[in-house]
Amino acid sequence: MSELFNFDLEKTDGNARAGSFDTPHGHIHTPIFAPVGTQATVKAVTPAQLEEIGASLILANTYHLYLRPGEELIASFSGLHQFMNWNKPILTDSGGFQVFSLAGTRQVDDDGVNFKSHIDGSIHRFTPEKSIKIQEALGADIIMAFDECAEPKDRNYSQVAMSRTHRWLERCISTKTRSDQALFGIVQGGIFPDLRKQSAEFISKLNLPGNAIGGLSVGESKKDMHGMIEAVNAILPVDKPRYLMGVGSPEDLINGIWRGVDIFDCVLPTRLARHNAAFTPFGRINLTNTGNSSEHSPIDESCSCYTCSHFSKAYLRHLIVAKEILASTLVSIHNLNFLLQLTLQARNAVLDNRYDAFAHEFLENWHEKTENNLEVKGFE
Amino acid sequence: MSELFNFDLEKTDGNARAGSFDTPHGHIHTPIFAPVGTQATVKAVTPAQLEEIGASLILANTYHLYLRPGEELIASFSGLHQFMNWNKPILTDSGGFQVFSLAGTRQVDDDGVNFKSHIDGSIHRFTPEKSIKIQEALGADIIMAFDECAEPKDRNYSQVAMSRTHRWLERCISTKTRSDQALFGIVQGGIFPDLRKQSAEFISKLNLPGNAIGGLSVGESKKDMHGMIEAVNAILPVDKPRYLMGVGSPEDLINGIWRGVDIFDCVLPTRLARHNAAFTPFGRINLTNTGNSSEHSPIDESCSCYTCSHFSKAYLRHLIVAKEILASTLVSIHNLNFLLQLTLQARNAVLDNRYDAFAHEFLENWHEKTENNLEVKGFE
Repeated sequence: MSELFNFDLEKTDGNARAGSFDTPHGHIHTPIFAPVGTQATVKAVTPAQLEEIGASLILANTYHLYLRPGEELIASFSGLHQFMNWNKPILTDSGGFQVFSLAGTRQVDDDGVNFKSHIDGSIHRFTPEKSIKIQEALGADIIMAFDECAEPKDRNYSQVAMSRTHRWLERCISTKTRSDQALFGIVQGGIFPDLRKQSAEFISKLNLPGNAIGGLSVGESKKDMHGMIEAVNAILPVDKPRYLMGVGSPEDLINGIWRGVDIFDCVLPTRLARHNAAFTPFGRINLTNTGNSSEHSPIDESCSCYTCSHFSKAYLRHLIVAKEILASTLVSIHNLNFLLQLTLQARNAVLDNRYDAFAHEFLENWHEKTENNLEVKGFE
Repeated sequence: MSELFNFDLEKTDGNARAGSFDTPHGHIHTPIFAPVGTQATVKAVTPAQLEEIGASLILANTYHLYLRPGEELIASFSGLHQFMNWNKPILTDSGGFQVFSLAGTRQVDDDGVNFKSHIDGSIHRFTPEKSIKIQEALGADIIMAFDECAEPKDRNYSQVAMSRTHRWLERCISTKTRSDQALFGIVQGGIFPDLRKQSAEFISKLNLPGNAIGGLSVGESKKDMHGMIEAVNAILPVDKPRYLMGVGSPEDLINGIWRGVDIFDCVLPTRLARHNAAFTPFGRINLTNTGNSSEHSPIDESCSCYTCSHFSKAYLRHLIVAKEILASTLVSIHNLNFLLQLTLQARNAVLDNRYDAFAHEFLENWHEKTENNLEVKGFE
């Protein structure tokens, strides 16, 4: 492991951690939330707007970018940073999760996965080697091992998928050639503590620059999610960053940090924004509610983002009702800013030794008024 | 007329003019292009992005805002400036054009127009008095007289509509109460020089703070459009700004300025952007053309807008093909910037006494390579 990807664990407060991770495109201060730019764009938001809200690490997807526009094109721009104009750290997912969640009919064998493109039904094959080669062409700072995502409640499948994920990780490590990219391994094992422990032990031994927890937030209970994070983080090395993949509701961030997670990503803030839902310290609100139709106040009086500094709920609701694109942009800016500020506040709470109080206060406010009338499906 | 709406004619060069118009929200330097914010948003662009490209005057639509969200809501924000967060000059169209072009079945009489909402089919009535009252509630700096837009090639209808527009203008003037809004009259008369002259003479006598030319760019030939502008501008007072309504292709701007027009507005730059077409000095290009799929250069090498400074044609084409909202935003920024820069260059050419050479050079480049494969219909 190169010094480049050094993780400096600045402070712990209980299991919560504050740290700093070096990448070729700058430091990542943890805990951190990474906005998702699936197709090399964080949906409806410009890089300048992302920078304005203090985004640092962002995520892009190997599966999507391989299918469209193809990794060769992005490599011709020396990678994603130049292609999408993001000069800060980027992480690419390996395509494992998407192959198992988005693609059509698939066939898994020990060597890899055949799958059908969700775009045009064409047939493709990913192997650990192929995933790493694509990710090297995409050129992100952090790349992910190719993993198999099982049904989390199916013990037999979880065990098979975990073992395959471990063998695939070894092949990813052998394939990797670039020293300016950090490869993170992924812990699998469904909702079974013994499998999770076994997987965490396996991955820990490989001494990778960072470790991820995969296969959560896919339908299991919050109790199971928390239990798995606790089981895994009891084993993962403390001197490496821990990335909880695909997790990103405000309460999940708070609970994850409490249990020692450093990095999060999720499509939730931007997807909710395009479905007219906004985060407030008291829970999500649905901007289309008629109660907002003449409301002069912003989404969140305590928020200093561009949207809350300049626009009322009545104006945002008008944009939504009139089907104006600007609604998606403005609400995405707010929701992303909300999670970025939340992780920043969490970091400060850890540094000040008051994370417990911070987390309790946040969760008490949050659960009180959450509007549960929002169902957001589909993928980003 | 208040000193507030003073027009300072700084320089003429042939018939081309450079001037400055005072409004409660600042000076407008002419010639100027006004981006259109039909529903109180310039589509897909934030006010901050508009400011960055140097937009000053923007337009909003009485017809749309009356129907949704209603002028009372906007009045509760002290008007459009605060509602949509635009602290520079705003102009509202009267609803006349939209009632005749967008609304369903309509009945015109000397008193006003009954029309069906294009949103829900509900029945409404606009009169000159109603249009002015709505525009006073919306609170723009420049408001427009309520006019009747005839089929431009139908002489009888053009004459009837022109006479009615004149009588309605007198009623608009009587109704108007706010001294912080400038009311512009509208010259009608189809493609008939004698009617246009008659209309321009009528409007000129009323000594309004500005005058507009309506009913053009609606299907007539370029020759007819230019002839009408010449006929009208030979009569309209030189010490008042002249606004050519709904006109806004680059070549139309150049030709309009050549013939003494000061203000333009059009949905074209943003509508084209959402249909993947971008302005260059050599004509429109269609970004979806496969030739752009691996093109590292920006839309226009000579352009300094955010889009051209940071993104390649290959990236923009990828966003378009992947149906990403960001494409609309980035191409809209470029197209708006193109027209704003074009009017700024035209203004400098007038100030330097070289407008003829400037216009000839632009038009020679422009016509050479225009891609005519774009049909953009519908309304904004």
